[in-house]
Amino acid sequence: MKLFAIKPVYAHCDLPCGVYDPAQAKIEAESVLAILKKYPELDEHNKIRAIIIKEQRAELVKQHLMVLWADYFKPEHLEKYPDLHNKFWLAIKQASNAKHHLDVSEGQKLVEQIDEIAKIFWETKKA
Amino acid sequence: MKLFAIKPVYAHCDLPCGVYDPAQAKIEAESVLAILKKYPELDEHNKIRAIIIKEQRAELVKQHLMVLWADYFKPEHLEKYPDLHNKFWLAIKQASNAKHHLDVSEGQKLVEQIDEIAKIFWETKKA
Amino acid sequence: MKLFAIKPVYAHCDLPCGVYDPAQAKIEAESVLAILKKYPELDEHNKIRAIIIKEQRAELVKQHLMVLWADYFKPEHLEKYPDLHNKFWLAIKQASNAKHHLDVSEGQKLVEQIDEIAKIFWETKKA
Amino acid sequence: MKLFAIKPVYAHCDLPCGVYDPAQAKIEAESVLAILKKYPELDEHNKIRAIIIKEQRAELVKQHLMVLWADYFKPEHLEKYPDLHNKFWLAIKQASNAKHHLDVSEGQKLVEQIDEIAKIFWETKKA
Amino acid sequence: MKLFAIKPVYAHCDLPCGVYDPAQAKIEAESVLAILKKYPELDEHNKIRAIIIKEQRAELVKQHLMVLWADYFKPEHLEKYPDLHNKFWLAIKQASNAKHHLDVSEGQKLVEQIDEIAKIFWETKKA
Amino acid sequence: MKLFAIKPVYAHCDLPCGVYDPAQAKIEAESVLAILKKYPELDEHNKIRAIIIKEQRAELVKQHLMVLWADYFKPEHLEKYPDLHNKFWLAIKQASNAKHHLDVSEGQKLVEQIDEIAKIFWETKKA
Repeated sequence: MKLFAIKPVYAHCDLPCGVYDPAQAKIEAESVLAILKKYPELDEHNKIRAIIIKEQRAELVKQHLMVLWADYFKPEHLEKYPDLHNKFWLAIKQASNAKHHLDVSEGQKLVEQIDEIAKIFWETKKA
Repeated sequence: MKLFAIKPVYAHCDLPCGVYDPAQAKIEAESVLAILKKYPELDEHNKIRAIIIKEQRAELVKQHLMVLWADYFKPEHLEKYPDLHNKFWLAIKQASNAKHHLDVSEGQKLVEQIDEIAKIFWETKKA
Repeated sequence: MKLFAIKPVYAHCDLPCGVYDPAQAKIEAESVLAILKKYPELDEHNKIRAIIIKEQRAELVKQHLMVLWADYFKPEHLEKYPDLHNKFWLAIKQASNAKHHLDVSEGQKLVEQIDEIAKIFWETKKA
Repeated sequence: MKLFAIKPVYAHCDLPCGVYDPAQAKIEAESVLAILKKYPELDEHNKIRAIIIKEQRAELVKQHLMVLWADYFKPEHLEKYPDLHNKFWLAIKQASNAKHHLDVSEGQKLVEQIDEIAKIFWETKKA
Repeated sequence: MKLFAIKPVYAHCDLPCGVYDPAQAKIEAESVLAILKKYPELDEHNKIRAIIIKEQRAELVKQHLMVLWADYFKPEHLEKYPDLHNKFWLAIKQASNAKHHLDVSEGQKLVEQIDEIAKIFWETKKA
Repeated sequence: MKLFAIKPVYAHCDLPCGVYDPAQAKIEAESVLAILKKYPELDEHNKIRAIIIKEQRAELVKQHLMVLWADYFKPEHLEKYPDLHNKFWLAIKQASNAKHHLDVSEGQKLVEQIDEIAKIFWETKKA
């Protein structure tokens, strides 16, 4: 008895699971934005904590966006949305900008860029 | 010059950031459910992958629920929803059940338990 | 040959493994407490490092407590210790408090709350 | 004394650190390839371990590629290499393919795609 | 005002925190051992889960041992226990063996090797 | 049909995969060094970010060195390089030093110690 035949059997499913949702990136981006807004009124200890947490949340934004971009979107979506690669590239870069800076506008820009991606995502789901 | 005074300064903000959303647990639970539904039709290699990913997704459900329960909910919520502790306990236990079993109903039960918690969450946000 | 029958086979064991020990949460809490005690005498670079490490250690306390609470404790324990949910809730919240503050007493309180839980744990193991 | 002025100070450095190296993705991809080659001769226990480790290594490939793509490459590189977005997209997708399949050729293709990206990377470093 | 003087200030404390305890490695090793003991009686789904969890627990053993070895032990301990390097090397290698194999004896050997290290650790603490 | 015979089957391969490369530790150490060099010119927000990232990179150095030491090197290498244990111990300790301090020389020393280990590694590969 063999666990698997030596000749690989191709899987035609898209495991992991087909559940994708831009809300994951959005919630983390909102967290980055909220941190940037609260930052000026924090005491010094919590200012440092805010920076630690902002790094983590912005990193999660990058991860969730990468999964959407590379795992969910398919060549046919690219044909319909030729700017898709660039939108993801700029949004992921913006997540890094939100790490580098303390300006609330950097968080707002990030949320807006994810909203644009989410709009495309939901259009492709309806199609 | 000292970075912090020796006497600790109390922070009165609730950093991290006040952004909570039961959607995070829900999306991971839907992923567990989708994996359980697809499982029977997968080849053997991807059956094993499905189990690996199901462990991870169910673990994320547990993490997201713990954050909601311990970081978001406050004593005044407990007074209004005296069963809140138990609901979280059972939902986190159900995430472990969804690790232990391959039955689709275990995933459905998990999603339903999170929906109940989400309903309470959104009631408290409106209050 | 099928790896698994389509009808799921129920597992009746409690894998992972049955090894639970409140020492895991305790050791991390002692680390949080030690950091808080050393904090005032650190230079500025290591003050920041202390805050980074305190976040991580307090997070591990939360994780270890959640595992004990949701994976080890069973309904029969709840009947005997009706305050169990609340004890865990407050201890996990205290781990967050120890993130928010620099006061040594926040770490001491955390260690004491874990000691209370550990006492109950060991009583249930003897029972 | 204030830790930071309320008006955010812009950082013009590219911290983290400027150290990028496609060798990181390459080494993980070689690990995926080596696992796929060894797979047929493994016993059943280690076949399962191989799948677990292949998931992790392929995931690291995706992470390292995302960092190169979004953190290292700049708009001027895009102008010179207009296919850059697509090369990264396909390479990250290929890392997912190498998770889905057991065929050695999937690992070889992944290594080759990373080699192409590395070639561009080193050209831009010399420029 | 500067956050830090340009000339680095040396820290003479051993942050992180001075809390070390071989119990951390021991508990994870006991978990590996318990998994190996339960393995034969598990159904197929939970056999795969057992292997996943065994990988994780054995990895944690390696991490905890590395921390003890490199962060806690000092040159004066080496003089008194000239075999210390080798003991750690063999114990960490044994954690890898417990990943590779399903034999209960591999787990028992790992627990015994950690017990030996713990004995030395507690002698150095008393000294 | 049984997934595995109850009597464990010994694996004689060295999965994971046989791909080892000291470049992994080296790249992270170069990142630590680059951070230390850039540190004095950073603004205060990015000084804190630099410390966060330095902790992570130095931790990865420790992980990669531990894998090389315990997974790659074999007793026959120890015979030929009797100082090998000590070299790894000092290099891992040096990664901790690079966490504790802001002095560029701590990063340079780390890179040099890894270079020495890499030299031995490549000699053993050629042998």
